[in-house]
Amino acid sequence: MPESRNLQLVLSQRPRGVPTADDIQLRSGTIRPANDGEVVIKNQYLSLDPAQRDWMNDAVSYLPPIGIGEPIRSTTLGVVIESRHAGFRVGDSVLGLAANAWEEYSTTHGDALTRAEPAGDYPLHYHLSIFSGAMGLTPYFGMLELGQPQPGETVLISAAAGAVGSIAGQIARIHGCRVVGIAGSDAKCERLTGEMGFDAAINYKTTDDLAAAIAATCPERVNIYFDNVGGAVLDAALLNLADHARVVFCGAISTYNATEPVPGPYNYWQVLARSATVKGLLTTNYVDRFDAAIEDIRRWLDEGQLHFREDIVDGLENTVDAYSRLFSGRNEGKLLVRLKANQDEE
Amino acid sequence: MPESRNLQLVLSQRPRGVPTADDIQLRSGTIRPANDGEVVIKNQYLSLDPAQRDWMNDAVSYLPPIGIGEPIRSTTLGVVIESRHAGFRVGDSVLGLAANAWEEYSTTHGDALTRAEPAGDYPLHYHLSIFSGAMGLTPYFGMLELGQPQPGETVLISAAAGAVGSIAGQIARIHGCRVVGIAGSDAKCERLTGEMGFDAAINYKTTDDLAAAIAATCPERVNIYFDNVGGAVLDAALLNLADHARVVFCGAISTYNATEPVPGPYNYWQVLARSATVKGLLTTNYVDRFDAAIEDIRRWLDEGQLHFREDIVDGLENTVDAYSRLFSGRNEGKLLVRLKANQDEE
Repeated sequence: MPESRNLQLVLSQRPRGVPTADDIQLRSGTIRPANDGEVVIKNQYLSLDPAQRDWMNDAVSYLPPIGIGEPIRSTTLGVVIESRHAGFRVGDSVLGLAANAWEEYSTTHGDALTRAEPAGDYPLHYHLSIFSGAMGLTPYFGMLELGQPQPGETVLISAAAGAVGSIAGQIARIHGCRVVGIAGSDAKCERLTGEMGFDAAINYKTTDDLAAAIAATCPERVNIYFDNVGGAVLDAALLNLADHARVVFCGAISTYNATEPVPGPYNYWQVLARSATVKGLLTTNYVDRFDAAIEDIRRWLDEGQLHFREDIVDGLENTVDAYSRLFSGRNEGKLLVRLKANQDEE
Repeated sequence: MPESRNLQLVLSQRPRGVPTADDIQLRSGTIRPANDGEVVIKNQYLSLDPAQRDWMNDAVSYLPPIGIGEPIRSTTLGVVIESRHAGFRVGDSVLGLAANAWEEYSTTHGDALTRAEPAGDYPLHYHLSIFSGAMGLTPYFGMLELGQPQPGETVLISAAAGAVGSIAGQIARIHGCRVVGIAGSDAKCERLTGEMGFDAAINYKTTDDLAAAIAATCPERVNIYFDNVGGAVLDAALLNLADHARVVFCGAISTYNATEPVPGPYNYWQVLARSATVKGLLTTNYVDRFDAAIEDIRRWLDEGQLHFREDIVDGLENTVDAYSRLFSGRNEGKLLVRLKANQDEE
């Protein structure tokens, strides 16, 4: 292991609003050698996910906050360059599901890693996008387990052109639903009703009254609302729920950068008025079914039923800027950072 | 039918805050004769329920708003004095589930009525309290269907000394749960842990930090939160949810008299963080199981497992004042108004 320098992106202070280069700073550290049970991973791709913004706050959530001075926790794809864990050998491609970080090299216990198995002709980094928890499995379990879509039902999706939303909508369509997406530009709406096969799309930025626009687009009301956004979009959706609707609470990206406490939906009462159910989605509840889920996703890809895009940025130094695009909607698909210098083993 | 005068309590203007005698006025009308299919009912007992406050607003809910000038919609117990419906005869005791109103006489389609069958030695007006939708069936289906209590789980209940909360808690206790109530006075807390058999009770009015008090009282966190209150109490409960918790959304009495839009819970995010489920409760979804539910409730009463109180007020003219006690917590059990002059047929 001749390398020793390890460039890392560390949390230097808790962000207020969208994280900037003041909050997340590039630091030159050294590679920590593996202890018993650990492996050292040369990271090739980093995943950029909305959930990481939540981990940067000092607040109760499903994972502890990232400590000040610690690298930004992340799912990565990399290659083992040192192993003191019986399950991994040098040269293995591995995924650390929120076990690694935005850094050139991660030293991680092997039990927190999974092997990145080749998936036919698809590139290995699909494990960070369509075959990943964040992009593939989240909409899969969110839509199918929490949403329970029935043929003919109306499904409404916020941030529908995003990585999760676009897949959630396509999975609902595959299951016979009428699918309506909410997105933030006409180009995104065209992509939704074009290559993604949505039945309709609403550009919330050019709509005066989103609740009325949803009502006009969903005349039979909304059986499943798949929420990635929270806030005002959630409130507009709640006013259009059908009786016994299911609200899949997958994320609330409109609130992640708030600097004051954010209230829940003003129209929360509609949950009672419509006998609706709001379900909080954590994909890790379904870990024993990940393999079967990925089989399904791969089959839909093979059959051309599922379409998605990746938005790949080169260089650790461009990560923070790329990350900010998540919150302005300027990303064009699932955001990944490629560490070019580390690509030789792929 | 010699009577013709019909005293009614009509909505004269939409209340701002707790309804007053300016909002709901006594009016002397006349009895409307029955058309085909209708019956005329001499009301003996009126039900006073939090849901009625919601119907007084001009807002979307599960029933349309009460119109200005209309009597206040209510469930009542009464006796048929004229019938043009094949299912009812003069002298029958009938219940109008939100089909009648706060008035001496209601003229109602027979299809909206059910017969008030004698229930052993229990008085007929138990159909408006423990055998009613609002008091008996709401906590029954809310706790058992939406809460799905498992033995050993911790159940937290807001407005626990109220009509619904106290029954919900006792049903959870019968099903082997540890039950903690939140109430607004030491006397209520003593009643909960005394005659109602709760395991613990928290007086939120003498607690500086309700979330911390819940944490101390529920060290294994909360598996089921049965919410009658909304607002700050809901927020404190959300911070104490166990993984896969169920929040039964039965009511939000803290918000019914608000004059500005009320936000949902600030800690709504915990629904995601804990993979929790929030379920809106409408008892009418279970109408085909009402008889079986009342059988269960009656058996628990017979066995002395279920305790409750009624708070019976005499006279239509005292209804609005009694109703205001619902929102200050000054009622001592399920609130009913007895129309004394109409008691002769019972």
